[in-house]
Amino acid sequence: MLTTGGCPKNALSIKDALEALEGRWKLLILFTLSSGPKRFKQISKEVIGITDKTLSKELKSLEGNRLIKREVYDTFPPTVEYTITAHGKSLEKVMEELHYWGLAHRREIMGN
Amino acid sequence: MLTTGGCPKNALSIKDALEALEGRWKLLILFTLSSGPKRFKQISKEVIGITDKTLSKELKSLEGNRLIKREVYDTFPPTVEYTITAHGKSLEKVMEELHYWGLAHRREIMGN
Repeated sequence: MLTTGGCPKNALSIKDALEALEGRWKLLILFTLSSGPKRFKQISKEVIGITDKTLSKELKSLEGNRLIKREVYDTFPPTVEYTITAHGKSLEKVMEELHYWGLAHRREIMGN
Repeated sequence: MLTTGGCPKNALSIKDALEALEGRWKLLILFTLSSGPKRFKQISKEVIGITDKTLSKELKSLEGNRLIKREVYDTFPPTVEYTITAHGKSLEKVMEELHYWGLAHRREIMGN
């Protein structure tokens, strides 16, 4: 198993991942965008509890890490849409495991 | 697939998980403890970059979420050891997926 022995080399790649995904919001934003491109206001409504200031900061960080793409459309007024990239979509399995673990965690904390 | 449609119910369990694992340190501490029980100083040395103050705070939070156990041994002077619980070990798959994704992320960021 990966964690048996706690090999420092594996810890490095986990650290890389955690730095790119730091905080409680990034994966939730990616999760919301996994159902399709969205505008700022839509994301803000779907990611419950996030402030506009934080969302704006997180979107920039996600863009810098190539996890989402910001696209400006030449409409009047201009429209901005955020889309998850293929690299962002590659977090699917991480999100899946977090989802299952989150369910188990709720049982563990509530059931004892 | 889990994320297709971005079902809000799935987002809830991901949110639960992210809240329990918030920040860049908790999973790294758990990863270090996955190779065996350790004392504070050992963990502090293996989790590169963490300060003692942060480690102390993170250990308390991990204990509160039943992910690790703090044990005091009646030696002279008393010895304190931290052990990963079965619930903490259940994060193995999450860590595995983060490890693989971290490797891919490094390639993505460096290769383009």
